[in-house]
Amino acid sequence: MSFLRMCFVFGLVTAVLGVAVAEEAGGMVWRDGSELRIDGKGWSDTPTPYSRLPERAEEKVRKPVWDRSLKSAGLVIHFNTDARKISFKWTLTSGSLAMHHMPATGVSGLDLYVKNADGKWLYVRNARPTGKSSTGSVNIWDAEKGNMREYKLYLPLYNGIESLQIGVPEGAKFEQPDVSDAKPIVYYGTSITQGACASRPGMAFAAMIERELGVPLINLGFSGNGRMEPEVAELLAELDPQVYVVDCLWNLTRAEDETIQERARNLIWKIRSKHAETPILFVGQSNFRGLRTGKTEALLEELEKAGDNRVENVHFLPGRDLLGDDGDGTVDGVHPNDLGMRRHADVLIPAIRELIAEEPEPKDAGEAKSD
Amino acid sequence: MSFLRMCFVFGLVTAVLGVAVAEEAGGMVWRDGSELRIDGKGWSDTPTPYSRLPERAEEKVRKPVWDRSLKSAGLVIHFNTDARKISFKWTLTSGSLAMHHMPATGVSGLDLYVKNADGKWLYVRNARPTGKSSTGSVNIWDAEKGNMREYKLYLPLYNGIESLQIGVPEGAKFEQPDVSDAKPIVYYGTSITQGACASRPGMAFAAMIERELGVPLINLGFSGNGRMEPEVAELLAELDPQVYVVDCLWNLTRAEDETIQERARNLIWKIRSKHAETPILFVGQSNFRGLRTGKTEALLEELEKAGDNRVENVHFLPGRDLLGDDGDGTVDGVHPNDLGMRRHADVLIPAIRELIAEEPEPKDAGEAKSD
Repeated sequence: MSFLRMCFVFGLVTAVLGVAVAEEAGGMVWRDGSELRIDGKGWSDTPTPYSRLPERAEEKVRKPVWDRSLKSAGLVIHFNTDARKISFKWTLTSGSLAMHHMPATGVSGLDLYVKNADGKWLYVRNARPTGKSSTGSVNIWDAEKGNMREYKLYLPLYNGIESLQIGVPEGAKFEQPDVSDAKPIVYYGTSITQGACASRPGMAFAAMIERELGVPLINLGFSGNGRMEPEVAELLAELDPQVYVVDCLWNLTRAEDETIQERARNLIWKIRSKHAETPILFVGQSNFRGLRTGKTEALLEELEKAGDNRVENVHFLPGRDLLGDDGDGTVDGVHPNDLGMRRHADVLIPAIRELIAEEPEPKDAGEAKSD
Repeated sequence: MSFLRMCFVFGLVTAVLGVAVAEEAGGMVWRDGSELRIDGKGWSDTPTPYSRLPERAEEKVRKPVWDRSLKSAGLVIHFNTDARKISFKWTLTSGSLAMHHMPATGVSGLDLYVKNADGKWLYVRNARPTGKSSTGSVNIWDAEKGNMREYKLYLPLYNGIESLQIGVPEGAKFEQPDVSDAKPIVYYGTSITQGACASRPGMAFAAMIERELGVPLINLGFSGNGRMEPEVAELLAELDPQVYVVDCLWNLTRAEDETIQERARNLIWKIRSKHAETPILFVGQSNFRGLRTGKTEALLEELEKAGDNRVENVHFLPGRDLLGDDGDGTVDGVHPNDLGMRRHADVLIPAIRELIAEEPEPKDAGEAKSD
């Protein structure tokens, strides 16, 4: 017998392994999500705890933008617990659980990550939606079981949350970490930003950026409707992030070049009227084996003019490597699958890292505040 | 304005871009899939053109193995055409189109690849299932449009095909390439081999191996039922591949160590009784942050005994890098998403390459035989 690789090491069982099990009849203490802090939100005055734009925006933005803001893409419940089992009950706003090219786990599921000893976030397990209302449990098996651990629960990408409860066994500690003092990244985009077509919410590239840079991220991806509109630009300017990212070209492929240029100019002005220095990163259209619609060039022309007019700190990232060059990064020629999401993150993370002031030091779970 | 990357190149539009369009009322010439050669089959005497085991196996193997053999995982229709539009009509054996963690495009969809000028296979577009019977069309936009091109159409991973037709516009050429004279790879495994949970059939790691090595591959992944059974071992021995790959440990996690060892021993004997030299590659259990069930060690012990008994050309590939170490390679902790499928292929392709005699030279579409 020959060994193809001699590096086979018999590892210790140190895994955090989540296994979906039938929920126990009792003995769980439930917390309502609406009473917990939800990260990834730009505004607190939203119509529901699980939506993304302030109530007053309903009158301002087009209805399709508003409708998409009610999907919970990018929202994250962040908690610490020593529980050896974590349970979920959630009711969605729509019983339409999946899309043809995106599974129910991505459209409507919950996705749990844990921080390991090195401060890295690792996937634990997801909870599968089985109907408009679902329940799920995750057993935490770990060498350090019984220790306080820090968790993030990513909410559905293409559905809304009507109600959500998180349960841990009686006697288990459950705490909310301090609010991060790092200013967020604001990422404005299309369906691709919203998370189509990740297999689960933690695989959206925006979630990867947030986890890997350790900086809060506000996902303002609006499927089919990320169009650099003045009304949205005004809302963006209300926020105070470390970086704005504007990644809208796929939703402007039918727009005139002049429209794109006018909207980019307006967006830069709106932001600069409130934030003289904040970096603004425009992203070129992702593409697939050389397809170009010319919209990236139209945008680029406008950004060059901004430079000529001494508008500082406006940046451009080409989109051509976002999907790779083999076509395997998409599920349908446009929307990334999980491989394409990873490729997006690999291009975007270093680009954004150059523009953020400082990555925060990882905090110990021990520093967390009790809820 | 600053450029984060100066390497932005305005590429030529040389893409093969498929766009799903409404099917034209007429003017298409349809070919029935049952009259075309279907690659990736180990036997021709199957109960339907779109299934994977010979009819006589129904009496031999357990019913769950048989049932899964009726799913079209790994089957590929290979054709050349100069058509600028390619259409599909297909009826599935089950109206259950998707799984919670695997989209309909992967479970029940069709997936089209084209060979580019360098001999590489690139994704064109997939056809989405919308019901038990579906139709779909792909427009071929290409700098070389109107030229003969070589295509592969991957069939559904977790559904069966009742009937399938491929249509091209009247007047377009449609040919079948010569049968490859390369002996195949036979890959025996579990749901992961069958293709769970790829977003589309071409993203199953077995399909990537076949495309990237340019060697036909017979996918004998049987979801939940790849258990190194004697009945299947006997069927495997009937074939005459370049390499056997046996990747069954996830479906043996509840088996006794002795059972695993006995089955591995029997499988090696069965194959060796017919094929004195053919390499047999056993794959260790893929794992996720160090999880080990001990089954890999049980298998390894048996393979070492085979070595002591001078059974030559039996190899072992550790499974620990198949999914990566961040947990992001799975959709549910076990089954690869498209990122995990790519990681599988990155580990498996070089390992299998070492064992195959020779990768065939890419053929020109011009050498193809008319049907």
